[in-house]
Amino acid sequence: MKFEVELKFPVNDLRRVETALADLGAAIEIPVKQSDFYYGHPARDFAQTDEALRIRRVGSKNIITYKGPKIDATTKTRREIEVPLVSGAEGAANIIDMIEALGFLQVAEVTKNRRKANLSFADQAVEVALDEVKGLGEFVELEISTNEDGVDAAREAINQLAEKLGLSGSERRSYLELILES
Amino acid sequence: MKFEVELKFPVNDLRRVETALADLGAAIEIPVKQSDFYYGHPARDFAQTDEALRIRRVGSKNIITYKGPKIDATTKTRREIEVPLVSGAEGAANIIDMIEALGFLQVAEVTKNRRKANLSFADQAVEVALDEVKGLGEFVELEISTNEDGVDAAREAINQLAEKLGLSGSERRSYLELILES
Repeated sequence: MKFEVELKFPVNDLRRVETALADLGAAIEIPVKQSDFYYGHPARDFAQTDEALRIRRVGSKNIITYKGPKIDATTKTRREIEVPLVSGAEGAANIIDMIEALGFLQVAEVTKNRRKANLSFADQAVEVALDEVKGLGEFVELEISTNEDGVDAAREAINQLAEKLGLSGSERRSYLELILES
Repeated sequence: MKFEVELKFPVNDLRRVETALADLGAAIEIPVKQSDFYYGHPARDFAQTDEALRIRRVGSKNIITYKGPKIDATTKTRREIEVPLVSGAEGAANIIDMIEALGFLQVAEVTKNRRKANLSFADQAVEVALDEVKGLGEFVELEISTNEDGVDAAREAINQLAEKLGLSGSERRSYLELILES
């Protein structure tokens, strides 16, 4: 079983974090625009049923994803069904037309420019995301994938790295939750 | 505006029709398995709203299609939204899992082996389908695509060809309707 140990921080100056990451030897990728469109069900309240239907556009790629309710409170495990679609604006338009014709309504859009960065820190492979989120501001996400035995060490490493990068005040809510609450 | 002039006939002996078509110079293709899975909506009665949601598998190809209500009684015009999917059994399984998780229920399956044949008859390009439909039997469909001015001539040609092939007792109902009624 894989675990994702993850923390997210709001920041005022993404460039400063970028420089600090480069100083630590991180390889920083070019920014990719990622748009997530969330839809409500015609007969169910997804907020109640803890489900989600999302169309994600990354670059020219389109993916539709269904997320089922959490089946386990401690690990946040969900059933997830992903269906890749035809690329480009037309591929996205077709599926959006179809699900809207079926009575699904768009409830939120989360659009961000994301730069990924990979670095090795405290013997851990850390994946960093530098996000500019439309309507919310700038964030940094730190994530380590590990097995159950490695969770404590991963959490320790993430906390140390956050301190080193001057990050504090972690945000537990998802971007979707922040947008729905704003 | 394109019109499809089409007649469908139940037959007892598809091979006899095949031979008669070959004698008329038709090019007959190899059989392709085509499976259509029709789904009901979680909150609407598609029989009432005159809509349909279909997953079609042709060979290894998978396509999901939404058909809206007829917008014009005389020409049977409908809004149709097609979304091509990833090929193969896995591509189909993913989308079926997703729409079933969203509360759509399979109401019917129409599976057929179809051999297409093309021939020129009475100066018209006729598309013929020789179908063995699971649970329904054998059928021959004759179709000509034309513009509005050509509808009468196309209908005349289809009737002549049907007579020549010994076809009678045309069936107006779709395979889906026949299966739902059986």
